[in-house]
Amino acid sequence: MRPTARQVAELANVSVATVSYVLSGRDRPVAAETRQRVLDAARQLGYTPNQAARSLRKRRTQRVCLVLSSLGGVPSDERLATDLHEMADARGYSVVTLTVDSEARAAAAIDVLRGGIADGALVNVVGDHFTHDLLTGLAATGLPMVVLSNESGLEGCDVVHTPETEACAQAVEHLLAEGRRRIAFMAHRFELYRDKPVGRLLGYTTALDRHGVDQRIVTSGADDRVSAYQTAAELLSSPDRPDAIFAASDRAAISTIWAARDAGLRVPGDVAVVGVGNIDEGLISNPQLSTVGPLRHDYTDVVRLLFDRLQAEEPPPAREIVRSWTFLRRGSS
Amino acid sequence: MRPTARQVAELANVSVATVSYVLSGRDRPVAAETRQRVLDAARQLGYTPNQAARSLRKRRTQRVCLVLSSLGGVPSDERLATDLHEMADARGYSVVTLTVDSEARAAAAIDVLRGGIADGALVNVVGDHFTHDLLTGLAATGLPMVVLSNESGLEGCDVVHTPETEACAQAVEHLLAEGRRRIAFMAHRFELYRDKPVGRLLGYTTALDRHGVDQRIVTSGADDRVSAYQTAAELLSSPDRPDAIFAASDRAAISTIWAARDAGLRVPGDVAVVGVGNIDEGLISNPQLSTVGPLRHDYTDVVRLLFDRLQAEEPPPAREIVRSWTFLRRGSS
Repeated sequence: MRPTARQVAELANVSVATVSYVLSGRDRPVAAETRQRVLDAARQLGYTPNQAARSLRKRRTQRVCLVLSSLGGVPSDERLATDLHEMADARGYSVVTLTVDSEARAAAAIDVLRGGIADGALVNVVGDHFTHDLLTGLAATGLPMVVLSNESGLEGCDVVHTPETEACAQAVEHLLAEGRRRIAFMAHRFELYRDKPVGRLLGYTTALDRHGVDQRIVTSGADDRVSAYQTAAELLSSPDRPDAIFAASDRAAISTIWAARDAGLRVPGDVAVVGVGNIDEGLISNPQLSTVGPLRHDYTDVVRLLFDRLQAEEPPPAREIVRSWTFLRRGSS
Repeated sequence: MRPTARQVAELANVSVATVSYVLSGRDRPVAAETRQRVLDAARQLGYTPNQAARSLRKRRTQRVCLVLSSLGGVPSDERLATDLHEMADARGYSVVTLTVDSEARAAAAIDVLRGGIADGALVNVVGDHFTHDLLTGLAATGLPMVVLSNESGLEGCDVVHTPETEACAQAVEHLLAEGRRRIAFMAHRFELYRDKPVGRLLGYTTALDRHGVDQRIVTSGADDRVSAYQTAAELLSSPDRPDAIFAASDRAAISTIWAARDAGLRVPGDVAVVGVGNIDEGLISNPQLSTVGPLRHDYTDVVRLLFDRLQAEEPPPAREIVRSWTFLRRGSS
C-alpha cells in the first residue's frame, strides 16, 4: 500500500501540514532541520507526495521547462537555450521558458511547474530568488530537474557546479602578478546584495586577501552594456583611476574597453581589462579580451542529464557535473 | 468515469465549496494561489462541469504565452518581455515563453498553444515560419491573440504593425542626400531568404530605386555582433569599399563602427553608419549611432490589447495598432 502523508508526519514527528509545506515546495517558513527530517522520512517510506505529483510524473506533456533569470542579453543563457531546444527537438519535446527575477516570480514559477506545465525542468537562475528550500521542495514532488547552481546540498535533482570563484581569483592574481594594484571589480547587481561575497566577487576579494592588497573598488555595472560603459567612464576619469578593471561579464568588459579607448587610454598599457564568460565577441574586441570562463561553450552534457532523468523508469540517483572554468589571458591584460 | 468535484477538492487540497466558488466564477474571495491550485487540479483531472465550463474557458490557466524567434540578443524582444511580465504580474498571470525559429518549431508551438498551455498569446516572430494560415487557424480556435506583424489580412486577433519599410527608406534617402552612393545593406539572414525584398531590405531598395541608384550591395551579418564585425571588416577592406553601411540592427551597426575604427577609418567621414532599433547603446557608441526605430520603447499599449481580450466577456472586434517609427540622425551619418 502506498505510504501516506500522515505516516511521513508521524515518522518525522511533525504535523501533516508541515509535510505538505515541505514537500509541496511552497515558500513557508520551515526550519532547515525539520525540513530535513521530513525529506528523510519521505525517502525512507518511499513517499511520493500526493496524487498530483504522481499524475505529474505519469502525465506526459512532452514539454521541458527552461527557467532563466531573464530573457536575453546573457550569452551563456542563449547557448544553454539553443542546446536545450536542439536536443528537445530531436526527442520530440517542446521547450517552454519561465523567467524568475523576483521572489514573487519564483513562487509563481513553482506553482506553474507543480501545475504540470512540463515533464521536467532545467533551472539556471542567478541570485537568491530560487531558494534552496524552494528547489529541494520542487524536486521532492518528483519533477525531474537539473539545476545549475553552486549551492551545496540540493537533493533529488542533478546539479551542475561552475567553480567560478577560483577561476576569478586566478584572473585577479594574474593582474597582481603584472603589477596592478588598483584593481576594480564591476559586479552584477545581485552580487552586491549578498551578506558576504560569493562567486565572482568572492574570487576578487580572495585573491586580494591572499596577496595582502587592502584596496577594494567594487561597483555595479556588469548587468548591461550601457551601465558598464558609464561606470567605466566614471572610474577612468577619477584622479585615482584603477589600473585594472575586472568585470563580472564579458559584455561589461567590452564596454569598458570602449570607454577606455574613448577616454584616450591604452588597453592594457594604462588600464588592464578582464571579463567573465569567454564569449566569441571577446575575440573581435580590440585588443582581444582576457576572460574567465569555459573553454568550450557546450551544454549538451547538462541537457543530457535532464533527458536521462525524463527517460528513466525510476528516478536515478542525483548526479553532479562540474563545468571546468579557467582564466584565459589575451591582449587586454 | 467522470471525475467529481470531490476529487478536484482532494487533489487541490481545498474544500468542495472552494472548488465550487472557483469553478462557478462566483465572486467569492479566494486566494490567487488557491484558485490556481483548483484550476490546475480540475484541468489535470479533466473536470468540466457544465456550470464551470464558461469560467474554465475564460480562465483556464492564468498564464499568457509569449512567442519569440529566439531567446535573447534582440533588445526590443527584451523590452517586450519586460513589459509583458510586469503587466502579467499585476494581473496575477504567469508568462511562459516559446521560441519559433523553424517550421518544425512553429508546428510544435501551435500544438502547445492549442493544447491550452496558456489563456492567450502575444506573438512576435520574424521570418516566414508562422505562416498566415497557421496564425489565422490558431486565432480561429478562440485563443485570444495579439500578433506583431506587417502581414495584412490576419483575422480573429489584434495586430500590431510597424511601418519599418518607409522609415528605412528615409534613412537611405538621408544617406543619398549626404552624397553617399555606394550604400551597403547588412541584412538579417531571414530577410535574404525571401522571394522578394520586404521590410527593412525593401526600404533600402525602394529608396535607391526612387533616386535611380543602380548599385546594390547586400550582405548578411545583422543577426549577431561577431558576424557584423567580420562582414563590415571585409566590406571596408575591399578596394571599392562602401561609403555607407546601413545595418538591419543597431547591434550590427555598432559592430560596424568598431570595425571601421579598428581599420583606421573615420565615421562618418570615410563611411557613414546607420542602424535599426534605436537601442540605448547607440548613445554610448562613438560617434553616436544614427538609427531607425521607435522614439519610445514601450509595449504597454500592445500588452494591454492582450489583457483586454482576456478579460472581455465576449471576443472583442479585432483591433490594430500602428507603432510609429522614424529615422533619427545622430553623429554616425
